[in-house]
This record gives sequence, C-alpha cells and structure tokens, in this order.
Amino acid sequence: MAKSKTKYNYDLIVLGSGPAGEKGAAQAAYFGKKVAIVERDYYLGGAAASTTIPSKTLRETSLALSGIRARRLHGVDLALKRRATVQDFLHHERTVKDAERTRVMNNMLHHNVDIIKGRGLFVDEQTIEVQILGKEPKLLKGDIILIATGSSPRRPDNFPKDRRIYDSDSILQMKSIPKNMVVVGGGIIGCEYACTFAALGVDVSLVHNKNILLPILDRDISFALKNGMSKIGINLIMPESVESCTVKANWLEIKLGSGKIIDTEAVMLATGRTSTSGELNLEAAGITPGKYGLLEVDQNYQVIHPETRKPVPRIYAAGDVIGRPALASTSMEQARFAMIKAFNLEPYKEHVTPILPLGIYTIPECSLAGKTEEECREEKIDYVVGKAAYNQNARGMIIGDRDGFLKLIYEFNNDLSRPMKLLGVHVIGEIASELIHIGVNALIMDASSNLFIDTCFNYPTLGELYKYATYDAMGNRARRLESE
Amino acid sequence: MAKSKTKYNYDLIVLGSGPAGEKGAAQAAYFGKKVAIVERDYYLGGAAASTTIPSKTLRETSLALSGIRARRLHGVDLALKRRATVQDFLHHERTVKDAERTRVMNNMLHHNVDIIKGRGLFVDEQTIEVQILGKEPKLLKGDIILIATGSSPRRPDNFPKDRRIYDSDSILQMKSIPKNMVVVGGGIIGCEYACTFAALGVDVSLVHNKNILLPILDRDISFALKNGMSKIGINLIMPESVESCTVKANWLEIKLGSGKIIDTEAVMLATGRTSTSGELNLEAAGITPGKYGLLEVDQNYQVIHPETRKPVPRIYAAGDVIGRPALASTSMEQARFAMIKAFNLEPYKEHVTPILPLGIYTIPECSLAGKTEEECREEKIDYVVGKAAYNQNARGMIIGDRDGFLKLIYEFNNDLSRPMKLLGVHVIGEIASELIHIGVNALIMDASSNLFIDTCFNYPTLGELYKYATYDAMGNRARRLESE
Repeated sequence: MAKSKTKYNYDLIVLGSGPAGEKGAAQAAYFGKKVAIVERDYYLGGAAASTTIPSKTLRETSLALSGIRARRLHGVDLALKRRATVQDFLHHERTVKDAERTRVMNNMLHHNVDIIKGRGLFVDEQTIEVQILGKEPKLLKGDIILIATGSSPRRPDNFPKDRRIYDSDSILQMKSIPKNMVVVGGGIIGCEYACTFAALGVDVSLVHNKNILLPILDRDISFALKNGMSKIGINLIMPESVESCTVKANWLEIKLGSGKIIDTEAVMLATGRTSTSGELNLEAAGITPGKYGLLEVDQNYQVIHPETRKPVPRIYAAGDVIGRPALASTSMEQARFAMIKAFNLEPYKEHVTPILPLGIYTIPECSLAGKTEEECREEKIDYVVGKAAYNQNARGMIIGDRDGFLKLIYEFNNDLSRPMKLLGVHVIGEIASELIHIGVNALIMDASSNLFIDTCFNYPTLGELYKYATYDAMGNRARRLESE
Repeated sequence: MAKSKTKYNYDLIVLGSGPAGEKGAAQAAYFGKKVAIVERDYYLGGAAASTTIPSKTLRETSLALSGIRARRLHGVDLALKRRATVQDFLHHERTVKDAERTRVMNNMLHHNVDIIKGRGLFVDEQTIEVQILGKEPKLLKGDIILIATGSSPRRPDNFPKDRRIYDSDSILQMKSIPKNMVVVGGGIIGCEYACTFAALGVDVSLVHNKNILLPILDRDISFALKNGMSKIGINLIMPESVESCTVKANWLEIKLGSGKIIDTEAVMLATGRTSTSGELNLEAAGITPGKYGLLEVDQNYQVIHPETRKPVPRIYAAGDVIGRPALASTSMEQARFAMIKAFNLEPYKEHVTPILPLGIYTIPECSLAGKTEEECREEKIDYVVGKAAYNQNARGMIIGDRDGFLKLIYEFNNDLSRPMKLLGVHVIGEIASELIHIGVNALIMDASSNLFIDTCFNYPTLGELYKYATYDAMGNRARRLESE
C-alpha cells in the first residue's frame, strides 16, 4: 500500500454515497461533526440513484407509454400504436437520475461534507486510504467509520457471459427493447422488472423457484399480485428452476428443470445480490465478512467481530452491505440511527422504528407494514381481518382500478365497546406505497380501530378505504361473537 | 295535504340520500334501528353521485386525454392531436356515476333500509308524508328525523336564462366542448371546473371578486395554486365583478366591473349554493330556515329553533343543508355523529373529529388540515414552518411534478431537545388529497415532530416529504434560536 504524507482527520468517514451513506453523513454533519464521504464511482448516489430510481422511472414511463392507466378509464385509449423505442424509454430516466445525483451532491455540500472520489481501503481500524486514479492516495483518519458500500448483482454459474444476459445493473444499459424476455428470480427486483417490461409490450416469462410469489407478502396480496401480473400478460412459470442457458445465433435457449425449452431474445437475472465488502481490505480492521460478503452488526449497527462476537470499536455498517431488507428506505434509517448511537446524540432519535414498510413497484403496486395473517398465526395472536376494495370506493372507480384492495389486521377482543389494536396493513393497487403510510403512522402510534372510525378522509380518496376496512373488521368481529 | 290511511313506523326517517343521508341511515341501521330513506330523485346518491364524483371523473379523464401528466415525463408526449369529443369526455363519467348510484343502493339494501322514492314533506314534528307520482301518498312516522336534502346552485340575477349559461349542476349536461368559457366565481367549484376545462384545451377565463384565490387555504398554497392555474393557461381576472351578461347571436357578452368586455361561447356560474329546505314544509315542524335556506344546528347537529334558540326535539340535519364546509367528507361525519347522539350510541363515536381536511381537485391539487399560518398569527400562536418540495423528492422527480410542495406548521418551543407539536399540514401537487391523510392522522393523535423523524417512509414516495419538511422546520427553529 502506497504511503502518503498528509493525514486528514475527521469525526466520521463514510464509505459509499448511496442512501445509507448520504443520510449517515448528513445526520452526523447536521450535529456539527466533520465528515468525509468516500465514493469510488464518478457519481454520488449509489444504487439508489443508478438503479432504484431509474427502474421506478422506467416503470412510470412504461405506464404512461403503454396507456395501461388511461385504458382503465373506459372509453379512453392512449395505447401507443407504434412500438416504444429505447429513446422514449430512457430519456426521462436520465433526467431523473441526473437530478438525483445532483441532489445528493448538493445535500453533501450543504452539510459541509468533504466529498472524496476514489477507492477507500482500511489501513487500520481508524484509517482509510483513498486511492485516486492518477493521483497520490489520501490518508483519512476517522473517529468513526460507517461502511455503506452497498451490493452488486450475483450471477448464478449456469449462465454464460453474453450481452443479451442482463442483471439488475446492466439492464438499464439495454440498447433496444426485445420482443420477449425471460426473467429469472421472483424476488422484488425480478417481479418489478417483469412488470415494467410487460407494460412496454415485451412478452415476459418469469421463472421462479418457489410456489409462492414474494412470500414476505401477506398471502392474500401475494395471490392478488400473481393474478395481476398474469393479467398484464406475464407468463409465470413456478415453481421451476433453470437447468441451463445456451447462446444460439439469434436467441438464447433456456432449459428448465422440467425439461421444457424456452427460446428468448433476452434474459434478466434477478437472483440475489452480494455485499460490496470484498475490496475494502477489511482484514486490516480485523473484520471478515460472512457469506455473500455480508457484514454482521449489532442492534446499534456496529459491526460485530466474527470470532470474538463483540462489536468492533467505532466501525458501523448500514444498508445493503448488512443484508436484508436491503431497501433504500430502511438503509437510510439504519445509517441515521447508527450515527446517533456512534456520537451519543440521543434523545434525538431513540430507536429505529420497528415498523419498516415494504413498497413493491410491481404492476399492480403492493405495500405492507406490520404483521401478515401468517405471522399472526405463527405467533398465536388472535386476530380479525377487515377488507375494502378499490372498486367499491369512489376514487378507485374514478381511476378505474378494479382489483386493488386494502386489508387491515386487528387484534381480536371480545368486548364490542372496546376498540381493536391495529397489527398489520396490506395494500395492492394504485399508489399502494403511498397509501400504506397512513397505516405506518397508526402502527407507530399504537393506534386502534377508533382512529380510522374517527378520521374524516377527503372524498373521493383511496384513504377512505381505511375507514371501510375497519367497519368490515368490526362487522367480522360482531359476527364471530354471535356465532360463538 | 292528502290523507292516507296506513302509517309506517320507523326509528329513523332520513330525507335525502346523498353522502349525509346514506351514512346517517347506514349508521343507525348498523345498530339495529329501523330506517327509511326518502329520495325525490330517480337515483340515490344525491349531489355526490350526480355532480361531485362526475366532476372528479371528468378531471381524471381530462388529465389522461390532455396528456398533461405524461407530458411531465420529459420526452413523452401523449397530448391528443385531435380535439377531444364530448363522448370521450363523458363515457367514463357515466360508468362511474352509475356504479356509485348502485353502490349507494346496495349499501341501503345491505343495511335493510327501506328506500322510499318520492317528495317528503313534514306533517308534524315526527310525521313525513311522501308524495309519490301517480300513487297515494305514504305517511311515515319517525322517532328521529334526519334532514339531509343538500343544496342546489344559486344563480345571480344579472345573468339571463340561456342554454350556454351553465351552473354546477347543468354543466355536466353540456353537449359540446366550447372553444372558450368564462367561469364566474373563484370558490372551490369554480376553480375545479376552470382547471378541468383548461386541461381539455378550452380557453378559460376565471372572474373572481376577491384578490386572493380560495382564502381558506394557507396563503403560500393559494399563491402557488394561482401560479399553477396560470401555468395551465387559465386567464385569472381578479379582483373583478361581472356587471352584465348579454346574449348575442353566437356568443355571450360579459361586461366586467372595470368596463372590459369578454365575448365567450359559454359561461359557468359558480356563485354559491342554496340549501334545499324550502320544499319540505318545515313550518309544520315549527322550523324556519335562515338565509339561503340554511338550517341552523347545535354541536350535536340537532336543528335549532330560530326563535326559542332551543334544539327542536328529534330533528337533526347534516350536510350541505346546514352550510359550510358542505363537503361530502364532512357531511358523512356529521350525519354519523348526529345519529350516535340521536340514539345514544356512545361511546361508539364520541365526537366529530375537529380535524376536517379539505381536498381541492384543481390542477394542481391542493389539500389542507389543521391551522394555516394566518390562523396561527390571528390566534397569537408562535410557530415554525418547514417545507419540502416535490422536485427535491425522488418520487416527485419521477412523476415530473416540479412545483408541488408540502408545508408543515409546528408550534415553536425553544428547547432543541424537545419535539414540536404539529399544528397544520398543507400540500399542493399530485395526490395532495391523499397525501394529507398522513398529516390528518398525526394531528388527530396530537403528534409531534418526532413522529415523522421516526417514521420509515417507502422510497421513492411523496410520503417522505413529511420527514424532510420536519427536518426543515427543526433547522428553522435552530437558526431562529441562534439569531435570538
């Protein structure tokens, strides 16, 4: 390792400028800490700016271009008569990506965070050497170090290298939109891209090795998503594995476990991600990453030493690099909380909320917060369900979403005059990821069925569904008590 | 008054089947009361089904047809090359209106409410005669009577009768979309229709007699709305009055107070509504309605006798018939609460929430809940404001809403370690009426700035704006304390 003369001192060095890195750096800087953020890519923003945001932008553009939303307004057909071009598809995406990268940059500058472009390597527990192309390396000393270097796609061995075989990073560099595509993996990334491409008119097959789509979802929502995805034309092949993938002249030949053959123009691998921890020279800090490069952390997001099982002093990690849920939203909260703990900034933020919602940008969109029915059963919690359908709601009818619904799970109690405690919120349909926040707040504040009975919702809005799902739950409780 | 032999006995008679009537009837029936609902129109649902829902549906269709939303995705242009036809415009509206009427009907049948079609007139405090065309009138006796007969548009005297001069009821029967239109009145109805027609390419002038648009809004939002409406091409003429309207051969000539003349193909009058109380023979129950037919009620929505100033026994009123805010959302809550009080059903619902949000379906959409800055100043409450812009939010960038923002008002306190109490929530931009509900819940539960700091919002969503507006408010408090 090259020696450099000057040593720069910081209260905090952040490795990586994705959602966890950005918010961790901003949090510490907000409280007056001197912060450096190290980013090896040309742009700031990490995977959120380069893949999360663009993929959601493509989804939005595909919904507009395909006319799927407008078509639901009976009598209105905006479906394009022509095939969408890659240019249509990508123009808005670039604008949004650039804006997000600029926003991260401005946020760092606004907080007086030093931005250091280069590869960061541990020299010892508190020293980071930043290698900068064509320049002398810089040595940074940090009281605290936050590792937020994210993850990268993992490719299974049975797929050859070929430009028509994409992963979740390379898919956005696609040059032309194929006629058909096989998506391998029915996790969040696989389902989201399958929907976006199907909306653009691509003939999509999704090969998934389980018999349930996104088992993290409440079963009702998972089934409804399966139906919704079939409805927009996705060929769901599950449970099924991929035996092999062979490169032919103008196509790729996929052989499934069942022996079935699919010829396709393109393949997208959505088969998990590996933590980007291997290139940090972590050994110098006495840390060995686990399987898939995962860093283990304690409840304060302080890195745990793999052998002693004790927290490594002053080294924290947040975001994809520590594994699930590996969402931008939770990564930000982890990093903020880690910095509060690292710098003893309580009571500013006393805990990371236990209510972490999940937003899935499939078509239809899904979102959840709190417990599923399956979890209640496992935990032997007696519960009552209430549902309200978009097609029974004025706003739902206006936007023409005929399949969406809200499902609330309440803790059962047999006293009709007593409200029931809210346990879980599940939505599938238009703006599900936004709608869930009403329930997220209610869960955080330990609200009961009274909250939604008392709330006056704007009319016509989808928010009203909370009231009607609660009425439904109350009716279900009353019927159950009558029959007992 | 004709005599009829049979007298039907009910616990509750509801006059009118709009939002207040429907929900009042359902509420009482849910608790086992025997209920009749009297509706003079052929369809159930009242103004919500015949005008509110259709106007919001037209707005949605106009946004889809005009491509306004899609155009915000740079590089995507779905604007129609042809002039929209009335058929495009109205097809989806009819479907939605029919569905809503059917929904109300099913809700009444589901709750075993007797639906009685005809004109209801008071015979005495507890007896209603229903006149049914071509049939013998029915006499209904009710322990409780709920008046929910709504309102109808009020026409100023200086406008002649002409088929090209519409009000908020007749506008939906328009046969062809005019090239230009003058909307008179800058209240909610006037602003909403002006935006919908502007989105359809009509050259709209809005004449408003005040110098502030929708003064009920926080001033920041009102100014932003003015800019937004100008941006979609509306010619805002304010403060200004209409002197006269003269019918010419192929046009209408509007003379303004300033002397300026506008020639237009169509006029829409949005100059207030009058309560529909005049045809109920209210004298028989000893009630005289006030100005514009308004019924006065106490805090339990029981009708107040105009002379004795005491509540009239067993007679309640809710919705437009009692005046402002005359919104479907609040009307429903009023009626539900009135029935709880009338039948002593506490503690099922102990009060009508003091937090009544306002959703305004202009383009851009606006919504508010709690206090405005102006109200805080009037009430001498020391406050801090925090804002977050859609164009600094990932979801806002994706949908291309460049002007929207969220504004939160917190009660100032000078202890940085103490959270601030939330006082008001104001939004302008896409899905404002949905987004407000996060704040509505927070206000109902008396939440502080800690709630949004602790909440994990899905990414990318507009919901995140609550967190960033709160950070902004905290920063503003800190800066203020530093400078003091």
